Amino acid sequence: MAPKTNGIGVQVEGTRICVVMVGLPARGKSYIAQKAQRYLKWLSIPAATFNVGNYRRHDSPSPSADFFDTNNPVGERKRRAAAEAAVQDMLRWFRAGGVVGILDATNSTKERRKWVIDRVRDEGVEVIFVESKCDDEALIMANIRDVKTTSPDYKGQDPEEAAQDFRNRIRNYEKVYKTINADGDEDDLTYLKIMNVGKQVIINRIQDYLQSRIVYYLMNLHIRPRSVWLSRHGESMLNLEGRIGGDADLSYRGDEYARKLPQLVLDSVGSDRPLTVWTSTLKRTINTARHLPPHYNQLQWKALDELDAGVCDGMTYQEISDMYPEDFQARDEDKYNYRYRGGESYRDVVIRLEPIIMELERSEDILIISHQAVIRCIYAYFMQKTQEESPWVPVPLHTLMKLTPRAYGTEVQTYKANIKAVSTWRGKGSTAKHEDPAPEGGV
Amino acid sequence: MAPKTNGIGVQVEGTRICVVMVGLPARGKSYIAQKAQRYLKWLSIPAATFNVGNYRRHDSPSPSADFFDTNNPVGERKRRAAAEAAVQDMLRWFRAGGVVGILDATNSTKERRKWVIDRVRDEGVEVIFVESKCDDEALIMANIRDVKTTSPDYKGQDPEEAAQDFRNRIRNYEKVYKTINADGDEDDLTYLKIMNVGKQVIINRIQDYLQSRIVYYLMNLHIRPRSVWLSRHGESMLNLEGRIGGDADLSYRGDEYARKLPQLVLDSVGSDRPLTVWTSTLKRTINTARHLPPHYNQLQWKALDELDAGVCDGMTYQEISDMYPEDFQARDEDKYNYRYRGGESYRDVVIRLEPIIMELERSEDILIISHQAVIRCIYAYFMQKTQEESPWVPVPLHTLMKLTPRAYGTEVQTYKANIKAVSTWRGKGSTAKHEDPAPEGGV
Repeated sequence: MAPKTNGIGVQVEGTRICVVMVGLPARGKSYIAQKAQRYLKWLSIPAATFNVGNYRRHDSPSPSADFFDTNNPVGERKRRAAAEAAVQDMLRWFRAGGVVGILDATNSTKERRKWVIDRVRDEGVEVIFVESKCDDEALIMANIRDVKTTSPDYKGQDPEEAAQDFRNRIRNYEKVYKTINADGDEDDLTYLKIMNVGKQVIINRIQDYLQSRIVYYLMNLHIRPRSVWLSRHGESMLNLEGRIGGDADLSYRGDEYARKLPQLVLDSVGSDRPLTVWTSTLKRTINTARHLPPHYNQLQWKALDELDAGVCDGMTYQEISDMYPEDFQARDEDKYNYRYRGGESYRDVVIRLEPIIMELERSEDILIISHQAVIRCIYAYFMQKTQEESPWVPVPLHTLMKLTPRAYGTEVQTYKANIKAVSTWRGKGSTAKHEDPAPEGGV
Repeated sequence: MAPKTNGIGVQVEGTRICVVMVGLPARGKSYIAQKAQRYLKWLSIPAATFNVGNYRRHDSPSPSADFFDTNNPVGERKRRAAAEAAVQDMLRWFRAGGVVGILDATNSTKERRKWVIDRVRDEGVEVIFVESKCDDEALIMANIRDVKTTSPDYKGQDPEEAAQDFRNRIRNYEKVYKTINADGDEDDLTYLKIMNVGKQVIINRIQDYLQSRIVYYLMNLHIRPRSVWLSRHGESMLNLEGRIGGDADLSYRGDEYARKLPQLVLDSVGSDRPLTVWTSTLKRTINTARHLPPHYNQLQWKALDELDAGVCDGMTYQEISDMYPEDFQARDEDKYNYRYRGGESYRDVVIRLEPIIMELERSEDILIISHQAVIRCIYAYFMQKTQEESPWVPVPLHTLMKLTPRAYGTEVQTYKANIKAVSTWRGKGSTAKHEDPAPEGGV
């Protein structure tokens, strides 16, 4: 049997999981579903979300709260049909090779959960319920405010009326809502119950590795506002020569960037609140961080070291192309999967970055000073870049990026130090030492 | 501020945690405590266990069940004094630089838990309760059988009487036992509650990274019987030349080992039940696994690749000593921490093996085919080898090891293929190409 590997370095062959969201409206279910999907896809695990609300909107674009009253037979029938359509699409997707399907709906009654289990287990797919339970009024209100301005259900409506209708809709759900295993008769189910955004979590009957990875990721999420800053090291002596890898000192201009970085950070933070700084273990990132204020904690991670170019470490692209022409071409054709002889691929880097992503999700404001390939992989996680795109993302030297996660996506701001540096970007097929990225490729 | 790193690659500077075990007797508390301590120490985090029973035995070596009756004032006083002595020692240990102290006792009442919190928080140490709750009669009986034969409390006593007395002791504890947060008034505590050995876990108010690592590790433990098999790849072409690293093919004798391995495994398993095989991504381990039966699942992990010798990759020890004499000596002086230029240290290897250990804890029978340094690190985890010892452990070629975790330690069996191979062991200060380990250093 051929050995298998995958994004998390573990056999998931044969495992297929349906993550069934549970909870009243405005409890952050879609946020959790979207994060889980992004994380899994970044790890090369085929994942997709099936949002029952989207199916329901085909038929009933902007229903009022009455529609969600369980005593309204028309609403009840239509909502049931939407769930059925979503589940059918999901099962088709599983048959076509899907691995983790996320069913995003309230699934707030025992009967509905039983129905989902019956439909999904018939296909040999494991079921794991993920419930978000929240009685923190402030959190719920924040979510309601968010929904009334972003939900397609209330498009073009008066915000106050929308909020009122949405509260009524929630009330209709509350009438029938049962938290998982409230009566002890759902004890056999596999579930993760997240209370008040992680203050308490209950984990029941987790069975295999992939389930445990999903659960561990979800239990580490938080929704406190924060940003992540990304910067490459300042220009290095090897950058000047167009050589990759190595452990060189900063160039004169690279050191200039290091001196300017504190002000750049201050401008982008907007206050003197300290960041925690993560660097790699290589000189050029540590030296780039050395002028930051002393009250910023600093930490070196081996996992943030540059992609290991193996036998090509220290060579120019021209030298690599001369010495290993076939490898050079293979890398251009599938840069994400190409592993340097004795070194790493982008896929390998993603695997070793997984603990960094986990820790980033747990943390608040972090400034990461690392390397081109590593920053591309982290950027790909936040910006949902595909494996085809991520190895080609331009990440210029002497530029600070600020990523701010929002409910539906991540905001990017860019701060340029205006200190000249060589370009280390290389277009497909090129061996140019200092090439500028094509204009349409910009971050 | 100087950047800090540590075994899990994360800043724990300033964090000190007291893990307070909670639960009736015979619920596996000491087993959990011992595993947590071993895991943390392997990650270079100073950890120690303070077992209140051991303190109590100074004064009362073999008390009968009445001693544990809360209506027995003498017993009550003595048990309180033992707890006090254990906590005092633990606090002294924290003041001397301890990071994770584990208080192993029943702590089965709210009052006792409150007392521990007051004593410990005064010192600025965080408290996390870890409760093992079990109502599975078969599990409890297995534990009672274990205790009556291994507990110093019952040394030399008739096993049946011991078991009966122990059951009475448990009953005395049951009278006053309160599971954590049973009444909702311990909701502010940080706790992990493990029900029936992980079937369900509740996690409440985990605050920081180190807490979350401990919790994640403990929630992955299981007690199903299993073994872990370790083997290096068969002898490689580079082994013949005394060169380290690289990605060479097997030698003729190495291939012979690969052909003999299936029988060696079969003999050590004792049945034809299949193992899951993990190899590194290097040819010599993959080829060593290639004759194993097709119903063994095989998986390649980059994390199992050999310690990266950086610029020394492919060199002999003599060449390294000639070219980098200072490095060579530095490595001998502190082999665990020495990082090859552009490569890795044993400490680095442990960090990247952490997910492997986590996955091993979750798994049942696994056969790992990997490399000398990597196997040393995995062996060190199971056998509690110190950082001074682990990089020198002899792991001969063409030898299969079977590790079987037991309640108090790990059993090792060794199966020799009786196929000649060069020795790749090198003594301190030596540059010998093929040296044999000193006889006293044997695994």
